[in-house]
Parts: sequence; structure tokens; C-alpha cells
Amino acid sequence: MQMLIDLSIPEQPENLLKLVKSCEDVLRLGVRTGHPRFFNQISCGLDLVSMAGEWLTATANTNMFTYEIAPVFILMEKSVMTRMWEAVGWDPEKADGIFAPGGAIANLYAMNAARHQLWPRSKHLGMKDIPTLCCFTSEDSHYSIKSASAVLGIGADHCFNIPTDKNGKMIPEALEAKIIESKKEGLTPFFVCCTAGTTVYGAFDPLERVANICERHKLWFHVDAAWGGGMLLSPEHRYKLAGVERANSVTWNPHKLMGALLQCSACLFRQDGLLFQCNQASADYLFQQDKPYDVSYDTGDKAIQCGRHNDVFKLWLMWKSKGMEGYRQQINKLMDLSAYFTRRIKETEGFELIIENPEFLNICFWYVPSKIRNLEPAEIKARLEKIAPKIKAGMMQRGTTMVGYQPDKQRPNFFRMIISNQAITREDLDFLIKEIVDIGESLE
Amino acid sequence: MQMLIDLSIPEQPENLLKLVKSCEDVLRLGVRTGHPRFFNQISCGLDLVSMAGEWLTATANTNMFTYEIAPVFILMEKSVMTRMWEAVGWDPEKADGIFAPGGAIANLYAMNAARHQLWPRSKHLGMKDIPTLCCFTSEDSHYSIKSASAVLGIGADHCFNIPTDKNGKMIPEALEAKIIESKKEGLTPFFVCCTAGTTVYGAFDPLERVANICERHKLWFHVDAAWGGGMLLSPEHRYKLAGVERANSVTWNPHKLMGALLQCSACLFRQDGLLFQCNQASADYLFQQDKPYDVSYDTGDKAIQCGRHNDVFKLWLMWKSKGMEGYRQQINKLMDLSAYFTRRIKETEGFELIIENPEFLNICFWYVPSKIRNLEPAEIKARLEKIAPKIKAGMMQRGTTMVGYQPDKQRPNFFRMIISNQAITREDLDFLIKEIVDIGESLE
Repeated sequence: MQMLIDLSIPEQPENLLKLVKSCEDVLRLGVRTGHPRFFNQISCGLDLVSMAGEWLTATANTNMFTYEIAPVFILMEKSVMTRMWEAVGWDPEKADGIFAPGGAIANLYAMNAARHQLWPRSKHLGMKDIPTLCCFTSEDSHYSIKSASAVLGIGADHCFNIPTDKNGKMIPEALEAKIIESKKEGLTPFFVCCTAGTTVYGAFDPLERVANICERHKLWFHVDAAWGGGMLLSPEHRYKLAGVERANSVTWNPHKLMGALLQCSACLFRQDGLLFQCNQASADYLFQQDKPYDVSYDTGDKAIQCGRHNDVFKLWLMWKSKGMEGYRQQINKLMDLSAYFTRRIKETEGFELIIENPEFLNICFWYVPSKIRNLEPAEIKARLEKIAPKIKAGMMQRGTTMVGYQPDKQRPNFFRMIISNQAITREDLDFLIKEIVDIGESLE
Repeated sequence: MQMLIDLSIPEQPENLLKLVKSCEDVLRLGVRTGHPRFFNQISCGLDLVSMAGEWLTATANTNMFTYEIAPVFILMEKSVMTRMWEAVGWDPEKADGIFAPGGAIANLYAMNAARHQLWPRSKHLGMKDIPTLCCFTSEDSHYSIKSASAVLGIGADHCFNIPTDKNGKMIPEALEAKIIESKKEGLTPFFVCCTAGTTVYGAFDPLERVANICERHKLWFHVDAAWGGGMLLSPEHRYKLAGVERANSVTWNPHKLMGALLQCSACLFRQDGLLFQCNQASADYLFQQDKPYDVSYDTGDKAIQCGRHNDVFKLWLMWKSKGMEGYRQQINKLMDLSAYFTRRIKETEGFELIIENPEFLNICFWYVPSKIRNLEPAEIKARLEKIAPKIKAGMMQRGTTMVGYQPDKQRPNFFRMIISNQAITREDLDFLIKEIVDIGESLE
């Protein structure tokens, strides 16, 4: 790669022609994440309206921390969040939220706020001055929950992984048992994370049942809907998140299912005020209180960040262009494609689904090449570990398509198909199946 | 504002003409942060090459966590950081770093890594299992240091503010006294932050002397050069950061002095490896280890974030277009303008500098309207508190220029002029002085 393009910073200015050539090289050598046959990531696709929004964002180049320098964008953030609060099922008059640089930081915001509500002393005196906290998330949840626990000084080992059932959903009984056990061990439970759309299997944890447990034990109830949040915009499919309105906080990344450009991620709170109390640093030298407008519009004191990129314009513009109805159709169409792909996998020889009936846009499967199908099960399993990486390497060499794989628990490497790009057609899905068979059968 | 533009998200799609009209309104009603008479923020200006870079970034729309999907950009990040490491004075073969969403998160990265190096147990078991930590930063430093201490579970009150001298620089003797005192009180000092370019006064802390103290007490030495880092590119002015090469970590925001679009912020480490050990979450389901390339190029396990925006392309393109020589000239020119403005302030009646000889691009001053000049000093001080806000409100009504103000310690509200936009000319500076006099004299 380093031989194909000169990435070094020169001593003297480079002329415009050379710069334009460099830009061409950069785009040519990059991975086409917007291509409808790029199935590798949950965030993909390239919505042109969102792109135009990002271009104008760059042109406006302002900072989201005060109404003074970003008046329109601050109001825009509120307008967009109002639709998101309504979609969650909250009263927009009482709710709060902030756009964060990605879901991991959004989850960190939520856990930090939860700690602050229960133990405000921690902000000033640290964790030594409060009980030993612990939190809970499913074993299939995103690693950022454990990371947040590490960063916040709670400790990754005090974030307990709750087992999931065969569909990848958190088992509520196991959660409650662990909560009780942790109390017996002298720990203080404070936070439970449910995932709405897990990274690998796309599973939705049972929100209502977990909400009941959180109420019973007086725990903060967070829903990491980074991936699944967009489903709230489909009246047909939103039942999968039933109970989300009982959450104290919700992470929802429009740069995933809604197709906004990276980065666009919101951390939403049912209760106004906490975000401010938790993160306010009283930096009057930046956030003056004697300005000629209502300074409650300023968001600087709600953020862990100081300067904050404008992530809302591209989402707002795209959302206006589609309307609520456009998103409804887009999400329903993706769900239909998911059902189509699942059917095709089931009927094509050599494919084996990990979860028989995927409920979302993740379809996980093995491809078992014909020459190993008749081996002993243990031998097939051992061989499978290397099949998916080899098939993927073949795709990358051909440059035709890309799809992710991973091992999980006792399962050897399997493919994780993601149907998230609004440009995907049935032909693209058929192509992927054909390509996997083609490369898989040609392996030595 | 809400009457001037319809910010709501509609039920049905909006047509293209209406969308374009909305975009026009948004840009028209926004604040022109790229205008050469916008002096309100440290991050301002609008470099067209950087903007083009951001546009292409949006077009490529990829995620910085793996080489697999961002091969060029991952190598580009390394190439740009190499120049930054060299500018700091480190061996690029041994250094490390990551682009973070803003200086506050970059500072958080640094403090988290410092804790991990000294007390790796904290990652797994939390703060309860290690001594009570404390850290140090000057009273004029950015509030994000205290915030990081709060977020990490160390506690804001365990981040001690060290007094500064009349030029706004940390007093090393006061730092060492506080370190010794905190040990006597049973605390465990671990982290000292020096600021290179403070937010209000633009002061540079005495890095060499603080480095000596950190060595003596075996403390992590962090330099928050978010604002002043760009000075390292000027052979004429970089002496102000002498000793920065002794730091363990440096925050440097190219979206400030270097004029890259928001957001562009780097957290640099002298020692490779720590960032990975500290933040690795072993999420093999996302960052597979059996890929057909050297997976040490993947950055996902170094980050607190999972998905990470590509902040480097716009910087790289701009830096190529200027070369090292272009930045040298740009920074020297800004420093010359700063000296010019200071001279003009000194010779214009009614203006009073807060720090007699500003050493950077912040010039802090009062304007004392003629009708209050002959009052008693205490009375002048009381009146001054309201003068700057009123003059600024006047500027905003006229829409001609913008400059920030703030109170500090015993000082009533004063203006903080920032000369950071490369488009600024002497005429713009003359204009600001004239405008302040004009509005100031017209006040009731």
C-alpha cells in the first residue's frame, strides 16, 4: 500500500494538481463502504442527502457547545431529539439527550449519569468514597459496556455478563440471580444494560421483563439500541423494543440503521437535568451566564466533551427528505430483505443458520463446502474454523463483496450478514450466496 | 429563530426544492465562524483545502477501527502522527497515539492511560482496589482535566488546581508543595498536566521545571497543548514548549491553531503499547485476529470508542498543501499579527491589557469607556463587569464581528481576543478596535 501512494507530509507545499491526484488515489484505494455489496459493517451505505448534509456541516464548521455560535444547529438538535424521544415513548417536555461521538461514548455517558444520580458524591470525591458498584449486561452485548465500567473506575470485572438463550437474548432469571448474588458478595448493583439489536446476532433482549427487575431492585435501566433503535420508526416492527419507554437512558445511533454518515449517535435520557448536573464543570470562562439570550440553550455543560462536532445536520436533512413515512418504508424493506435472505440460506445446500429464525437484520451462518460435508461432526467443526476466513480472503482478492465473520463461544468462525444499506436489492443477496458457494467450493 | 425556519421533521418526505431552501436558511441564519472578523473562538477560520478533505471524508464514509475497511486512512493517520511525534521531539519508532473526538476526550485518554500504567489493576477491579489517586493542573488550565478526573472515578476534588503567576503560568514551587502535602494527607499523586497555551490567557506553563518535578516524584507528565501544539511547527516560536519531549503524553488539536475543520484532535504517547493494553477489550467478534494482513494496523483496540470518525484526511490534505514550510509561515504570521494587535491596544486610549506582554495569540483586555474613566477604581471595576457583555451584545446586533469575554478570579469581565484564523489581516484587527470604541462610547 505504501508503494501505491505517497502519504508523507512534504517540506514544501504540494501543488493543486498533485493534491487532486492524491485524492483520486485515496478514493481509488479505499474500501467502497457505500457499495450495496459491502455487507461487512452495521454502518454502511452512502445516503446522498446525508452526504450533502455533511458537506454543508463542513462549510458551516461550527461547534455545538453554545447557542451563541450554533443557534440553528442547537435548535435542530432539539427538534431531531424530539422525534427520537417520541419514538422511544417519552414526554419530550421532560426528556434530555446529547449527540455523542459514537455509541461507545454514548454508553459511557449513560453509565456516568446513572452513577451520578445514585452517588453524586463520586463526581467530587471519586469511587473510593462510595460503595463498590457493579453493573450487568448480556454476554452478547457490545464490549463498550465493560469498557465504560473500566474507564469510569468501576472495573471491567464488576460488569457482569449475563447468559443469553439460544436466540441471543439475555435470560432475565439469570440477571436477577446475579443481582442477588452480587449483593450477597457485598457489591452494590446500580446499572443494567439491555441490548436492542446485538452486534453479532441482532437479538433484542426482553425489555419489559428486565424493566420489572430493575424496578424491583431500584437499578438504572439502560437500553443500548445503537443498532436496533431505528426499528422504533417502523410501526410494524417496533414491538421488538416493547418496554423501551421504561428505560432511564437509551443509546441510539442514526449512523447505523438510519443510514446517516458516520458519526451520528445519540444518548437519550428520560429525565431532564441529570446530564447537566453530572457533567457541569462550572467553566464560566467558556460558558458565560450573562449573555443576551436564554443560556439554557447552551449544551457545553451537559457534555463530557468541550468542543463538539455538529452531527445533527446530516441526520436532520436526511430525515426531512424521507419524512417519518420514508423511514418506515426503508426499515420495512430491509426487514423484508432479511426474511428473503434467510429463506435463500435455508434452501441453498451447504448453508447452515446459527439462529434458525433471525429477528433482525443480522443473519449468521456457516457455509460447509461439499468436500467436508460427509466428515465426522467434530472434524467438520475443526475445518469450519478456517473456512470463513478463507472465503472472505477470496472475496477481498476478487474485490466483489465483503461480509464479516467471527467465532463465538463454542462455535467456529461463521459469517455475519448485515442488511443495513438501503441500496441493497435481492440480486445483491443472491450474488453473495453465489460468491460464497463459488469460493467455498474452490478451496483446497 | 423558530419562526424563521421550520426545523421540524415531517410525516411525509419533503421535496428537493424545499430541502435546498431549508439548507439556504440554515446557512444564512448561522454564525459565520470562518469570517476573518470572527474572533470568538480558538477554533475558527475555514481552510478550503481542509473543507475539501472533509467533503471527501464524507464521500468515503468509512470507520477508522480496522485496516480492513480503512487501509489508506489508517496509514495516513500514522504518517500524519509521525510528523507530530517528530515535532514533539519523540522517536516515531517508539511513539503511539490516536485521533480523538476533541481535546477533552484526548485528555481523558491520557489520564486513563496514566492510571493504567501505574495501577493496571484498576481496569479490572476499579478504583476501590487501589490507593486514592490525585492529580494536578494549573488553575488556568482547561476544565476537561478536572472533568476527566470526575469521569474516571478519581473525583474532581482530587484534581488540584495549582496557582499561576501574573502571566498565567503554573508556579512549579506551588506544584511541588502541593504534591508533598497530598502525600502527607494519604493521597497518591500520579498525574500532572501542564498547559501549553491556556484557554483564556494563552500562557505556556514552564515544562522543563515541571518535568523535573514529575521525574523526582515519579509522576506521569501530560502536556495539554490542544491550543499551543501548532507552535511546534514554527522553529522561531517552538522554544515556548521547550521540554515537551519529556512528556509522557501530549494533547494537540489541529482543529485549533492548525486550522483543520472541527473535529481534529490527537492524543500522543511517547511510549508505544500502553494505549492498547489500557483500552483493549478483547472483542474478537469485531477485531478478528486471523485476518490476511498484519492486524497490528487495526486501531479498534486502542480506542475507548468503537466506531471512530475519520478525522485525519482533512488534516493530511491541508498539511500536504502547505508543507512544513507553509505552517511555519502561517504560525509566524499569526504571531506577528498578535504583536501588532497588542501594540495597537497599548497605544489606543481606553484599552487596558490584562497581561502586559501576551506570549501567544490570546490578547486579554478591558475597554474603559471615557465616561467612567475618572471614577474611583472600585467603581470602575464594578462598572466594567457589565461593559464587555454590553459591547458584545452590540456587536452581535450589528452582526459585524464577534469576540469572547469572561470574568476571571478577581477580574471583572474582560475581552479575550483570539488570533487564530489565517485569513485575518491588520485591517480586521483595526476594525475590531474601532468597533469596540464605537459601541463602548455609545453605551448609556
